Amino acid sequence: MEWSIATCALGGSLEEKLLAIAQAGFRAVEVFEEDLAGFPGTPPELRALAEDLGLKIVALQPLRDYEGMPEPYRGRNRERALRWLDLVAELGTELTYVCSNTSPLALDDPEATAEDLHTLAEMAASRGLRVGYEALAWGRHVKDWPRAWEMVRRADHPHLGLVLDSFHCFVRNNPLPESADLPGEKIFLVQLSDAPNLLMDPLALSRHHRVMPGQGDWPMEAFLRAVLATGYRGAISLEIFNEWFRAAPPKWVAQDGMRSLKLLFDQLGLLLPPLPSGSAVQGVAFLELGGQEEDLEALKDFLRPLGLKPVARHPALEQELWASGSVRLLLRGDLEESATRELPAVLGVGLSVAKAVPLAARAREVGLDLLPREVDGPGFPAVHGVGCTRFYLVDGPLDTTLPFQPLGEPGNSLDQVDHFTNVVSRFEVYSWLLIYKAWLGLEVSPVVEVFDPYGIFYSRSLRNPEGTVQIPVNTAEGWETLASRFLHTLGHAGIQHVAFQVSDLLAFAEEAQKAGFRPLRIPSSYYSLLSARYALPAPFLERLKALNLLYDQDPKGGVFLHLYTPSFQGRFFFEVLERKNGYAGFGAANAGIRLQAQARELVNRARGLAGSEP
Amino acid sequence: MEWSIATCALGGSLEEKLLAIAQAGFRAVEVFEEDLAGFPGTPPELRALAEDLGLKIVALQPLRDYEGMPEPYRGRNRERALRWLDLVAELGTELTYVCSNTSPLALDDPEATAEDLHTLAEMAASRGLRVGYEALAWGRHVKDWPRAWEMVRRADHPHLGLVLDSFHCFVRNNPLPESADLPGEKIFLVQLSDAPNLLMDPLALSRHHRVMPGQGDWPMEAFLRAVLATGYRGAISLEIFNEWFRAAPPKWVAQDGMRSLKLLFDQLGLLLPPLPSGSAVQGVAFLELGGQEEDLEALKDFLRPLGLKPVARHPALEQELWASGSVRLLLRGDLEESATRELPAVLGVGLSVAKAVPLAARAREVGLDLLPREVDGPGFPAVHGVGCTRFYLVDGPLDTTLPFQPLGEPGNSLDQVDHFTNVVSRFEVYSWLLIYKAWLGLEVSPVVEVFDPYGIFYSRSLRNPEGTVQIPVNTAEGWETLASRFLHTLGHAGIQHVAFQVSDLLAFAEEAQKAGFRPLRIPSSYYSLLSARYALPAPFLERLKALNLLYDQDPKGGVFLHLYTPSFQGRFFFEVLERKNGYAGFGAANAGIRLQAQARELVNRARGLAGSEP
Repeated sequence: MEWSIATCALGGSLEEKLLAIAQAGFRAVEVFEEDLAGFPGTPPELRALAEDLGLKIVALQPLRDYEGMPEPYRGRNRERALRWLDLVAELGTELTYVCSNTSPLALDDPEATAEDLHTLAEMAASRGLRVGYEALAWGRHVKDWPRAWEMVRRADHPHLGLVLDSFHCFVRNNPLPESADLPGEKIFLVQLSDAPNLLMDPLALSRHHRVMPGQGDWPMEAFLRAVLATGYRGAISLEIFNEWFRAAPPKWVAQDGMRSLKLLFDQLGLLLPPLPSGSAVQGVAFLELGGQEEDLEALKDFLRPLGLKPVARHPALEQELWASGSVRLLLRGDLEESATRELPAVLGVGLSVAKAVPLAARAREVGLDLLPREVDGPGFPAVHGVGCTRFYLVDGPLDTTLPFQPLGEPGNSLDQVDHFTNVVSRFEVYSWLLIYKAWLGLEVSPVVEVFDPYGIFYSRSLRNPEGTVQIPVNTAEGWETLASRFLHTLGHAGIQHVAFQVSDLLAFAEEAQKAGFRPLRIPSSYYSLLSARYALPAPFLERLKALNLLYDQDPKGGVFLHLYTPSFQGRFFFEVLERKNGYAGFGAANAGIRLQAQARELVNRARGLAGSEP
Repeated sequence: MEWSIATCALGGSLEEKLLAIAQAGFRAVEVFEEDLAGFPGTPPELRALAEDLGLKIVALQPLRDYEGMPEPYRGRNRERALRWLDLVAELGTELTYVCSNTSPLALDDPEATAEDLHTLAEMAASRGLRVGYEALAWGRHVKDWPRAWEMVRRADHPHLGLVLDSFHCFVRNNPLPESADLPGEKIFLVQLSDAPNLLMDPLALSRHHRVMPGQGDWPMEAFLRAVLATGYRGAISLEIFNEWFRAAPPKWVAQDGMRSLKLLFDQLGLLLPPLPSGSAVQGVAFLELGGQEEDLEALKDFLRPLGLKPVARHPALEQELWASGSVRLLLRGDLEESATRELPAVLGVGLSVAKAVPLAARAREVGLDLLPREVDGPGFPAVHGVGCTRFYLVDGPLDTTLPFQPLGEPGNSLDQVDHFTNVVSRFEVYSWLLIYKAWLGLEVSPVVEVFDPYGIFYSRSLRNPEGTVQIPVNTAEGWETLASRFLHTLGHAGIQHVAFQVSDLLAFAEEAQKAGFRPLRIPSSYYSLLSARYALPAPFLERLKALNLLYDQDPKGGVFLHLYTPSFQGRFFFEVLERKNGYAGFGAANAGIRLQAQARELVNRARGLAGSEP
């Protein structure tokens, strides 16, 4: 069984695409007509290029609007088909396929359709080629694979078979293939693409929203299982149309494709060798923050009113561990800025895991880079995260593993890390969703969309079953959005904010206020509207207002209280929150207000006004 | 009758929004709840700010999930409503409204619903306020305005009325209001938004694709006419949700809103004074190209093989008129580069018009800047075009109006200008579509989407009824797309390419080849695929291939032949084309190939390889 990807899934020139596909580990590729048309060489030269890269061309796709046409189109189409087959032969691939006719002129004539397909198969056979037939969801008369299969049976030619595409199958609510009705040897090609559950025109959905298996909402495992049950053992090809994929570096897309197929086949128990079984992620052991030496002093002043305290220090290097409750922050002033790493920043996340080694192995297998242990850094196996961040895999006690000298006791203001957000480019949302699923087995929540004052903000959240590791992955459209500005400042993706959980936020906020903490300012009108939204008691509202707390509740009575720090030098910020009665979200209802307040803070920073930062 | 716009339509802080709205000429505004929540002042301070800007706040919107709830929510909702009305009163507006309940808990109980609305109206009345009720297309039980109107009638309170929104009306295929059934005095507010005809979930369509009247596909005139026939004379408010609008400068959005309302009311014959009646646009009189002096010599070498010849020269300045057929290019070497104007570039388009003055007046009325006649430039009234380009309005003979000395006869290789493309940011596509409609009465074609090698390319084309002025307005998503790169290079929007029409492209191309012309290279594989696509005769195909011509045909037998020049210094390019049998498109089927070839040319330029440019 070959794993293939169609060239239309990737951006770039055809040469760049093939290189990326081969480097990601694919050994087969489907060539899309338009990519061939733009290739500055002959079809044999293209085949040679693919062969040099170890790639077999499984098919040239597609021949359009061929079957079931009235004369004079019918005769002309046979002429067209001859030339198409010559080209397929010249390219040296043995398969091509016909997409069901979308022409308004196409006849609803099964006999003529079958005859046209038979003729085509006959012409193909004389060249040693095979021809597939695929039902497009927006075909004129053939929209569903059972109907296409009926045509193939009727045409009855050994060189004619069916092409099955999960997209068309699911978007039209077609049944899954059943081995009793559809023998595997009559399936000539299987294409996979997933999609989000959006109610929209199938053609528009197909053109813009196709994604890799595992990145959408459709049951890809069930589809593949059904296909394999027919006895099909041919190529499995990823056929994605998505402008964000085409705008991304082709290398990323090809790697995502490989990751997606590995995860899918592993889930079916078919991957050989299987993915290393991994290990449960238990929580966030620590966060690593880095800055120049002078930043670090300011950062400590920033953290102190939150009740974080220094608990240990490196004997020689500018490294300190700060703590409160089970929250641990590793503050590092021993790092250099580099082209890819701007400081200050949240640089790393230590994950508490049962066993580090299998998780590192699994990371490598799903395409994440392993990093050498830094001699003077935290001594844990490390894996590349978003942007220049890294994950450390911590399977022992943190405090004793670090070669630090004790300084004092941790604070008790915070309980634990609730979540940390990744801000990435639009394409990378798809990537990281797949990575977190494949690597750590995290679950994905539906998309959240929020008005940003300068565009729109999207978020998908990943979490482990216990909710002790939660990672909202955010992106935004519009160049002035806060997420975009964060990306510009950082030059790449990163960790924009870290949220700490407490059991009593009102008490925390009062304590912090006494310690000199000045939260992100929330306008008083917010509280007037909050009052009208939830009919909260006036004294409670007054306390929220005095402390700049935000409030949300879910329909089941879950309650969420949270506050934000100002941004630290415009680079990252913290949130402190309290969850009650099983509230499981992230306060999306308040994201617009938070973004407005932060935008205002940025303007004030730019104007050099006081009060925006401690 | 007041013209209003809702603050949710614009990006920025509320202060920025109000300023942009006032500056665009609005005298009324609807305040969106979330904008008030983020406002760093009290409601009376907001009212004072609006008043300072001459803006009346027509409504605070909306109260959600209020009516028809079971206990204990029902009692709580009355408490919420009280607080909401207090806030409305504090803001000093006299209207607010309820959006139909979307809660899964809402009861399908018309009696309770009407009772809740009556109670609300009674509470409003005691504060001197009025309350509207609006059917959301995704409401739980009330999705259509006739149903909302039924509830309003049943509630029967003088302080309760209907809110009508064209979006919800059209997306649910509701009937237009009829004066017999719905008296105008029971309509408390009318909101307008247009949308493209996309088959998708109404909520997603509403959140992402609402546009100004005239920018979408819905019959806004019919809606407004029906509303006015009921006797309604209250505020007409633009309520748009669209992330591209929020990402654009708020000033642009507010100006578009004003332009949209002017055009709509003018079309109904209600604008007082009406828009100046304009004047038909007859064709493209000339194009103005500017460059530094050394660029200009290279440009002349670039144009000569196309058969363009110098026909006149300015006696003192570096200005020449080049010509072939009715094509006129004004080449200017007397211009300075500036922060906004990078050279070389296509800087202006002279439009042949019956009368210049009324068109200039109409331009000003739809919000385009008029430019003073440049003393040493072409002596025509000028109007700001996309980016830093300008339109000249030419209502006399060009050759005699320019104070030039004759040099020779025009070439005869070209017939006329077929079209010129604007490349703009995504938001500006909406803007310019409206501007070209409102100013010049051009018609808009449906959107064309094409794969760019690095993303996706969108195009809307504008044309006059005769097809003598055609302007594809293009944009692209993905930072590496050619359109994006053009925008980066230019720093703003611009004219990326100009297409000339000929009557025999094969003859033209052969002649040009003899004169040393080297077109944009089209890969040979394109011709193999073209052969399979249209079964063209082999000798004809060979000629196309030898000359690097592209070919397209439409279902009615129309044929399109075209070729491209390489880009001139990476800044702009030309196309030469032939239309046969009424072909009316722009060769979208070949746009992908052209973009690939141009991307390849850019890479070659960057590598300094020969052959990419003359």
